[in-house]
Amino acid sequence: MPSSFPENSVGLVTPQCLHFDEPLVLRSGKRIASYDLMVETYGTLNAARSNAILVCHALSGDHHAAGYHKESDSKPGWWDNCIGPGKPIDTRKFFVVCLNNLGGCAGSTGPTSLNPETGTFYGPDFPVVTVRDWVNSQARLMDRLGIVQWAAVIGGSLGGMQVMRWSISYPERLRHAIMIAVAPKLSAQNIAFNEVARQSITADPHFHDGRYLEHGTYPKKGVMLARMVGHITYLSDSAMREKFGKASEELPSEAIKSNFGRDLRSGKLSFGLDVDFQVESYLHYQGERFSERFDANTYLLMTKALDYFDPTVDYDGDLAKAFEHSQCRFLLMSFSSDWRFPPERTREIVNALLKARKPVSYLEIDADQGHDAFLLPVPRYMQALSTYLARVSDEVNR
Amino acid sequence: MPSSFPENSVGLVTPQCLHFDEPLVLRSGKRIASYDLMVETYGTLNAARSNAILVCHALSGDHHAAGYHKESDSKPGWWDNCIGPGKPIDTRKFFVVCLNNLGGCAGSTGPTSLNPETGTFYGPDFPVVTVRDWVNSQARLMDRLGIVQWAAVIGGSLGGMQVMRWSISYPERLRHAIMIAVAPKLSAQNIAFNEVARQSITADPHFHDGRYLEHGTYPKKGVMLARMVGHITYLSDSAMREKFGKASEELPSEAIKSNFGRDLRSGKLSFGLDVDFQVESYLHYQGERFSERFDANTYLLMTKALDYFDPTVDYDGDLAKAFEHSQCRFLLMSFSSDWRFPPERTREIVNALLKARKPVSYLEIDADQGHDAFLLPVPRYMQALSTYLARVSDEVNR
Repeated sequence: MPSSFPENSVGLVTPQCLHFDEPLVLRSGKRIASYDLMVETYGTLNAARSNAILVCHALSGDHHAAGYHKESDSKPGWWDNCIGPGKPIDTRKFFVVCLNNLGGCAGSTGPTSLNPETGTFYGPDFPVVTVRDWVNSQARLMDRLGIVQWAAVIGGSLGGMQVMRWSISYPERLRHAIMIAVAPKLSAQNIAFNEVARQSITADPHFHDGRYLEHGTYPKKGVMLARMVGHITYLSDSAMREKFGKASEELPSEAIKSNFGRDLRSGKLSFGLDVDFQVESYLHYQGERFSERFDANTYLLMTKALDYFDPTVDYDGDLAKAFEHSQCRFLLMSFSSDWRFPPERTREIVNALLKARKPVSYLEIDADQGHDAFLLPVPRYMQALSTYLARVSDEVNR
Repeated sequence: MPSSFPENSVGLVTPQCLHFDEPLVLRSGKRIASYDLMVETYGTLNAARSNAILVCHALSGDHHAAGYHKESDSKPGWWDNCIGPGKPIDTRKFFVVCLNNLGGCAGSTGPTSLNPETGTFYGPDFPVVTVRDWVNSQARLMDRLGIVQWAAVIGGSLGGMQVMRWSISYPERLRHAIMIAVAPKLSAQNIAFNEVARQSITADPHFHDGRYLEHGTYPKKGVMLARMVGHITYLSDSAMREKFGKASEELPSEAIKSNFGRDLRSGKLSFGLDVDFQVESYLHYQGERFSERFDANTYLLMTKALDYFDPTVDYDGDLAKAFEHSQCRFLLMSFSSDWRFPPERTREIVNALLKARKPVSYLEIDADQGHDAFLLPVPRYMQALSTYLARVSDEVNR
């Protein structure tokens, strides 16, 4: 590992592109004749092939979960807080696998790939993929890697939904299911926000019914707007007040202090339509950056995968029944200020698991950062994950 | 009153357009040389001119608060639940005044009016107006009507902010300040949602930098999107689940029932980008309807008025100090499921009033309908308002 990276980093990593020739039949009934999956692994598979952990990504993630692709990278992978030597998902003990899901835009087959049947980009013709389809494709990846059973499947948010589906669809193929900041399914409010995001994208004049690549354009503004809406739901109100409310610290001491997060961008109001508050500026920046790296059609697909996820669909709406044949042990974690998938939602999964008489541990973490907390090094969260996974390592690295 | 209207309706009403010639200097420093205000009144001013109530509207409201403009109207004014003979704001006892605020799009001077200086529509040149500017214009209306002191000024949401400003700017000119579902000022999250709404509108290719009227176009899709975002924040998660979760009532009785509000529009998933869930359909409809009646530039102005509202700005950030010279009595009400301006926010106003030693009553109403509850006939809310205003009537109708 080059000395320029922190000692507990996995350092330089190289993704692999794996090709799959066997057609995949999707939940929609459509099929993908063949496809590529971009994969990154960290750590070493042990002789018993028993120490593999699958990390599932959320809406905007990809296969690059930890380490750096080149020396000059300013940021590591999206879950570098969690993955590395000595980190909760300890790469000295585990072989960690992360992939870009089908329909993604980071190298796996998706809307920006060429459709072999037409010779042009899939674009809007790429079929809607569901969490179940992803898990099926992940099972094939598992076979390819020669892994019979995951030591654990781990994910937060949409990643946690994949973990849930693993425990239901492939009960014998994972020892532990670790779901973080997850819900049994989206609520009407969650779906509503997703629909606003989709409408933002499809209303952009550069969207061209999804064929923007053929038109040499990109619905940048629409993606930016979609991300801005999303971003608000990832943060908590209190985290935003803290982040954008430095000025309120300077209030006179006798004032009843309330931090509303109203820091101004330039010290005074514009009395026009300009950006006045820091929070606006921040959202623009986040939206802008995201729109430079993320494909619009993939964003649409990801939100549909979220909306469609319902593990009870084959079980008369009964989540306990869905878990009936699960064989793994479960760890669930939620964050107190997460209003996207609040602790109540996670507890519904816990209750269903209890009703199904499955072994489950649950921890609600006090954290101010909202839904985003699952990506952050919140000490109690990191500690809990470390402790749990140390026990998993003892089981699988005998 | 024609027999076709309910007995407790104010019946047919006719708005008046009042012209004001004295220039109004705005908080921005800009001035409006002359302007019109559209006004509606209900009930009769008593001989002492002491029974007048000013009703202030919120973001999308106008002067038409109660009754009907014509026999064929399918819906009455926006606060008809509250205003009428025998209703909480009892028109047998009070003379009720409601106006469309400056910058509005229902007849008062605003972006859709002709700018006398240019001979064309104001459009984006209409200056940003603040809550304080509105209250100053309302004070002139009050003078015109020959009213020295309001029996009460009443409003919900942005309307409540106008009430707050009245109590600070014109302490001797109101007896009672009644604020419903209000906050001392917007939080970063509130501002963030407003900014998404603004970006939705300005990104619409038909916006033409606000000069869409001159182009003969309208940023319909942008306004629709803005309203969709707003609408989500007006409803509570639980209200949405109830509204869009009828299907979950049919789950088998042994299932752990959770209502997520996931009713499908057509009974099955589209596996495409079509509308799948009822909640999406509902939001489209609401956005569509709104975009047919509301001006885009006015929407932008209203959101800026919300963002800018800060009654503490002349008082070192101290809300108690802002209320120091207030002379009225205060009633505040909040709703348990309102996550836009939650009860905590309202309680901050109550605490500031207590610190300033002002007479204040506060009621938190258990209601599932979110921020929208302030417009709805929630029984305990209606009861409380009735009781309070009956006492006000006793004071002013001696």
